[in-house]
Amino acid sequence: MEGETIRWEDDTGEVSLLDQTALPARVRRIRCRDVERLAEAIRRLEIRGAPALGVAGAYGVALAAARSREQDLEPFLADVSDAAELLRSTRPTAVNLSWGIDRVLLKVQAARSIAECRRVALAEAKAVAAEDALICRRIGDHGASLLPDRGTVLTHCNAGALATSEWGTALGVIRSAVAAGKEIRVLACETRPLLQGARLTAWELARDGIPVTVIVDSAAASLMQAGEVDCVIVGADRITRDAVFNKVGTYMHAVCARHHGIPFYVAAPRSTLDPGSTAAGVVVEERAREEVSRFGSRQVVPDAAGVRNPAFDATPFPLVSAIITEDGIHRPPFDTLGRAAGRSQR
Amino acid sequence: MEGETIRWEDDTGEVSLLDQTALPARVRRIRCRDVERLAEAIRRLEIRGAPALGVAGAYGVALAAARSREQDLEPFLADVSDAAELLRSTRPTAVNLSWGIDRVLLKVQAARSIAECRRVALAEAKAVAAEDALICRRIGDHGASLLPDRGTVLTHCNAGALATSEWGTALGVIRSAVAAGKEIRVLACETRPLLQGARLTAWELARDGIPVTVIVDSAAASLMQAGEVDCVIVGADRITRDAVFNKVGTYMHAVCARHHGIPFYVAAPRSTLDPGSTAAGVVVEERAREEVSRFGSRQVVPDAAGVRNPAFDATPFPLVSAIITEDGIHRPPFDTLGRAAGRSQR
Repeated sequence: MEGETIRWEDDTGEVSLLDQTALPARVRRIRCRDVERLAEAIRRLEIRGAPALGVAGAYGVALAAARSREQDLEPFLADVSDAAELLRSTRPTAVNLSWGIDRVLLKVQAARSIAECRRVALAEAKAVAAEDALICRRIGDHGASLLPDRGTVLTHCNAGALATSEWGTALGVIRSAVAAGKEIRVLACETRPLLQGARLTAWELARDGIPVTVIVDSAAASLMQAGEVDCVIVGADRITRDAVFNKVGTYMHAVCARHHGIPFYVAAPRSTLDPGSTAAGVVVEERAREEVSRFGSRQVVPDAAGVRNPAFDATPFPLVSAIITEDGIHRPPFDTLGRAAGRSQR
Repeated sequence: MEGETIRWEDDTGEVSLLDQTALPARVRRIRCRDVERLAEAIRRLEIRGAPALGVAGAYGVALAAARSREQDLEPFLADVSDAAELLRSTRPTAVNLSWGIDRVLLKVQAARSIAECRRVALAEAKAVAAEDALICRRIGDHGASLLPDRGTVLTHCNAGALATSEWGTALGVIRSAVAAGKEIRVLACETRPLLQGARLTAWELARDGIPVTVIVDSAAASLMQAGEVDCVIVGADRITRDAVFNKVGTYMHAVCARHHGIPFYVAAPRSTLDPGSTAAGVVVEERAREEVSRFGSRQVVPDAAGVRNPAFDATPFPLVSAIITEDGIHRPPFDTLGRAAGRSQR
């Protein structure tokens, strides 16, 4: 639904978002009156998903502009810039967040009055959200041709409507395929530790009437072995010039898909591309011990044991069968992707 | 510790076991006064692990013999036989359970009085437990030579003291290596859905002072990619003549280990061997939806979504670098294993 994941509330001048930590048990919205609350929402994963973070970053800068109490342009711009850096620091791996922040910041910095800053910031943020919705439709339409007329698609984490303005990237491809009459069943890996697959992917697909079955992440390989997976499709948090960064577990699925001769697809907007970086240079966010050591209210890892909790992993290009962006389907060695990325950087 | 996992209480004639569903938060014992309670304990996974189930099956038959109120041999034997079938039905995949049951049942059936039945049943069950402890030491001592002098070993689920009488199979190899002066660090995969890795493996290794770090199952591949895993070692629930059945996720680790050129080892007693079967003929236990759909008290999978929850998967022999049993290290194509299995069947 339009603006369900995140939207600007014109009546109150707030950013409102669907609380993704409460799903599927409760459907509730959070209203962010200031940038601090929005930054908190990003940190707590109340909103997550690379493209949605781009939109959140854009709205965040608009929110900072709307809230600053400075009367003169220079301190006002400093205020907005500080807010932008606060937002940027919340998630180090997702490149879209910075991309969304910078798109609006650029407009703000070119404006010549505080009123103009506020106006252009909000207009640009709304444009980022609207474009994201369009881009997802294009990704979906390009990618739908890759899916079988009838078959089972495995996905990891949530690259759906909840990770974008609407429609989704990986799930957008599935939605477009279903809209085109294909009979697609989805295997949703639960996605430890925060269960975005079980909680979010299963929720949004079931709501759309697309058959979805949840499995533990480590059961994927044996279903591939049993011939029950026709292809894998996932989103991305950052695509360097040599690898796809996405939720931890993605790489494992790619390795297992290759072992079984199953295509492995990535669906992401061009704003996810970071052709100036290589995998070796990317900082992978390490999240809190408690995400793994506690299970609801219960302690499941003894205090004397260590925990490592990387949020993402890197899938090298040779394991990727195709990357689907809004400008089409890119195949190895992904030279066309590099040029497209080059264009989007200019 | 001796008899910690499961033991016969001579003073009360009960089978007592460490409640593995309460660990690591609480250390408490369950006393099974009758076979029904023991069967319940096996179903609830209060006791689990292939070799420990062999011991549980053996003690279960002894418990049935001790409890039967029949006065004549024939109905007494029918009683014990019914109890054996109840125990056997609790976990369809683990072959050791049946093996332990049958070992004691055979002795009972050869006895000529109820008193003799009871005596030989208990003696044989205690022998099964004592032999299991010895077998684990032998597996450990054989396998220790495979581990590096200094390095990191990845394991899945719990194939430790808690899965056996004591010492463990996969963790027995690690314990023997540490006892021999090797510096081993362990990466314990948490093992969804029931977290035996996080709860049990981390608990028993930390208690022994062996450095252990817990990760989500799907992070294993990226740590292999980063060069942080020197080898993988797991236990087994059944070894057919072509594959190793073990906790779901084992196959995924085997595929990823092969992709990264990392050795993949299996440690198991000969009682796990089932050379008369092939992987295709094994029934893989499908466990309850709620193990995946609920997270503590919280619902994490919407009702409209399906769940699949296979407890085990099958790792074909070509992915296995070595199988360690009490009689030594077996290498592909595992012909020596087949002969050893043949001997144990006679």
